[in-house]
Amino acid sequence: MTEVVADVAAALAAALPGRVVTDRHAMEAYRRDQCLLAPAGRPAAVVRARSTDDVITTLRTAGDHHAPVVTRGAGTGLAGAANAIDDCVVLSLTGMDRILSLDVPGRTAIVEPGVLTGVLDARAREHGLWYPPDPGSKAISTIGGNLATNAGGMCCAKYGVTADHVAALTAVLADGRVIRTGPPTRKNVTGLDLTRLLVGSEGTLAVIVDATVRLRPLPAATATAVAAFPTPQQAVDSVLRIAAVADPAAVELMDRTCIRAVNRLTRMGLDESSGALLLVQCDGPSADQEAATCARLAEAGGATEVLHTADPTEGEMFMQARRMVYPALERLGTTLLDDVGVAVQDLPRLLAAIERTAADHGVLVGTFGHAADGNLHPTVVYDATDRDAADRARAAFDDIVAAALVLGGTITGEHGVGSLKTPYLDAQLGPTERELMTGIKGVFDPGGILNPGRGY
Amino acid sequence: MTEVVADVAAALAAALPGRVVTDRHAMEAYRRDQCLLAPAGRPAAVVRARSTDDVITTLRTAGDHHAPVVTRGAGTGLAGAANAIDDCVVLSLTGMDRILSLDVPGRTAIVEPGVLTGVLDARAREHGLWYPPDPGSKAISTIGGNLATNAGGMCCAKYGVTADHVAALTAVLADGRVIRTGPPTRKNVTGLDLTRLLVGSEGTLAVIVDATVRLRPLPAATATAVAAFPTPQQAVDSVLRIAAVADPAAVELMDRTCIRAVNRLTRMGLDESSGALLLVQCDGPSADQEAATCARLAEAGGATEVLHTADPTEGEMFMQARRMVYPALERLGTTLLDDVGVAVQDLPRLLAAIERTAADHGVLVGTFGHAADGNLHPTVVYDATDRDAADRARAAFDDIVAAALVLGGTITGEHGVGSLKTPYLDAQLGPTERELMTGIKGVFDPGGILNPGRGY
Repeated sequence: MTEVVADVAAALAAALPGRVVTDRHAMEAYRRDQCLLAPAGRPAAVVRARSTDDVITTLRTAGDHHAPVVTRGAGTGLAGAANAIDDCVVLSLTGMDRILSLDVPGRTAIVEPGVLTGVLDARAREHGLWYPPDPGSKAISTIGGNLATNAGGMCCAKYGVTADHVAALTAVLADGRVIRTGPPTRKNVTGLDLTRLLVGSEGTLAVIVDATVRLRPLPAATATAVAAFPTPQQAVDSVLRIAAVADPAAVELMDRTCIRAVNRLTRMGLDESSGALLLVQCDGPSADQEAATCARLAEAGGATEVLHTADPTEGEMFMQARRMVYPALERLGTTLLDDVGVAVQDLPRLLAAIERTAADHGVLVGTFGHAADGNLHPTVVYDATDRDAADRARAAFDDIVAAALVLGGTITGEHGVGSLKTPYLDAQLGPTERELMTGIKGVFDPGGILNPGRGY
Repeated sequence: MTEVVADVAAALAAALPGRVVTDRHAMEAYRRDQCLLAPAGRPAAVVRARSTDDVITTLRTAGDHHAPVVTRGAGTGLAGAANAIDDCVVLSLTGMDRILSLDVPGRTAIVEPGVLTGVLDARAREHGLWYPPDPGSKAISTIGGNLATNAGGMCCAKYGVTADHVAALTAVLADGRVIRTGPPTRKNVTGLDLTRLLVGSEGTLAVIVDATVRLRPLPAATATAVAAFPTPQQAVDSVLRIAAVADPAAVELMDRTCIRAVNRLTRMGLDESSGALLLVQCDGPSADQEAATCARLAEAGGATEVLHTADPTEGEMFMQARRMVYPALERLGTTLLDDVGVAVQDLPRLLAAIERTAADHGVLVGTFGHAADGNLHPTVVYDATDRDAADRARAAFDDIVAAALVLGGTITGEHGVGSLKTPYLDAQLGPTERELMTGIKGVFDPGGILNPGRGY
């Protein structure tokens, strides 16, 4: 351990008794998120913050020692944004897990960053409200992590992403000063939008210590439609036709590889001759007729098997097929989960490019995702014990990102850049845009201690 | 005319033949927006840009001469953000008025900043789509001005503000470099959100030269409910109850002064014994039943007169009462139109404070606005020929802004800060937040030529 590292660890331990972990084995659990592709360094210390004051002390101390700070929640991230940097301070916020207030008539909650998103949603539901953003990890991921990555999910189709549900934030700057964005009024045009700037900034600008989030009244009803199409093109055409007349909460797509994988895991008996499966969930007072309309449009669009139901349990069973995709793919091998986005009407071209990529590199790619948002998760499945297969998998992953860019899309729709996709940034952002982002970072964090080298 | 001013005017005239106005009388029309309270300087030159290249040349030339640049659209702004600064270059974008593309299946349009918002909406409607943001000025204001102020309107209650409908922007920096925010995918988390940073920045960061905006499918039906309440408190209670079960496109409030003013102008025969009138517009496939629900809730909430209709013409007639409020108040004297926001449940307290303010200063204040967003437009009406009345009107205006801040609200919900509200900024923003905003401005515009001294 270098002297500098020992210094910052000792200074933190002295300043924050009982909050600091420096044991190498104990720190192991704080080194990584869920992204296996990105490297993870060895931290100098881990701070388990319990309060805003703990965060302030951590940032000031790290700043004094020029130590990088990697802020993390539950570590469910998929882009390595929370992976440790060598000799950094890992700032864990899972201990700041209080719901500070729940204003039912005002339909807002003030939460600390360590609150699990699923817990917030469950608390809201006790009062006839809900918190819409629903990343797949919502039961185990924190709202702070969701804010840092501007997390999406299935019901973004209708309700938008995490940023669309944030009214105001309190955050600590790198130098320990506390800022408050907002006010949490529904409309506010006083000054620049610092709230939107912080959401999705992946721990590079400031550390969010509380968030005022918006809740919605629970919809009166939900209804679900499922449609199996011979080709992905027909499925996407139906997505566009559905979007023209209905406003479904979720429109999810699974390709043939995913259908087969789910069948293998669950024996659900999905039609393996289909080229694509579409799952549509509608909500609100006219959910049933909306789902029926979606089903009718899917049938007119060439779907060979169409079902729709207003029974919530049956609907949940259908959606379960979609939720099982990733676990089902994981059963087939090691997975590289991608997260690209294009305009919805470009999805067939993206899907075709993914198919070509799989063939070119001789790898299996299962593709699923949020069709109404044009946001897909092509997942390369490979044998990690085979070095050549791993290289081909990585090459396929790169080609998929490139294909999204060729179509004018994005290298990440909802998982974030992290350390995984930093190498791809120049392929999407122009040098002037990157220069602006770096400049903004310099305004918030002149010493460059917050998650340096990541995000943009 | 100083030498510097003559220099920049001559340089622009030489660089942009046919585009530059320097005649003092001709420049008069470019000196002001609709805000009478804010001062307006005398420009050195007006550039009527027709292309991105014109904008680049204008900014480079102004930068070379250290001349401030005030960018403007149709001049319908209400906060003096487009008022000229002495010796500035006014950059008018009304000549950049092309709709560059309209993608019906993708539901996006690419527009130049000088396109009138109403024209964009009308073009979208020809294809079964619409552009939701509907500031009162939409027939005569440009999309560029709407973007610069992050304009709101009536149907923000359901559809959000201008920023919620922007997918990507092309903009010119102060030094003439062109940036592209985006891509226009529905989800994108690559880097910081430059789109949201530019929207609402009131011409201080960059000049937007095209915008990719999102359109929506036209709703299947609309229905309208009107309810007259004895007190504003009852009206607001009903707004909260309605919001818990329905999702109206617009929820508009008018106080007794507004009711009387509209009656005087239109002979509509609104009930002048009411303390507040609520107008609720619902849309979508279940609009009729939703409006009926709203009417029922209003009645249960103490409304003395309740009507609802699924007839679009009749509904439009009801909404017309709301649209006539401002013209009706203008008939009563000179008006100071304010634009404050609070949490919805704080509206009764804001309304009570406004009433006290009117009594304290002996002025007439008519209050109307977007109840579901907590965004009101208290309008002080006075006799501009009476110096003392003008002073009292201004004092009342100040007190209303202060009342919103006491309630944790905002000094501007949708009109912007401009030059009108710059003096109030320190009452809402902390010094650290302002420092960050100024720092961001320095990143985009290091020479400080873009609308200096305004917005934050």
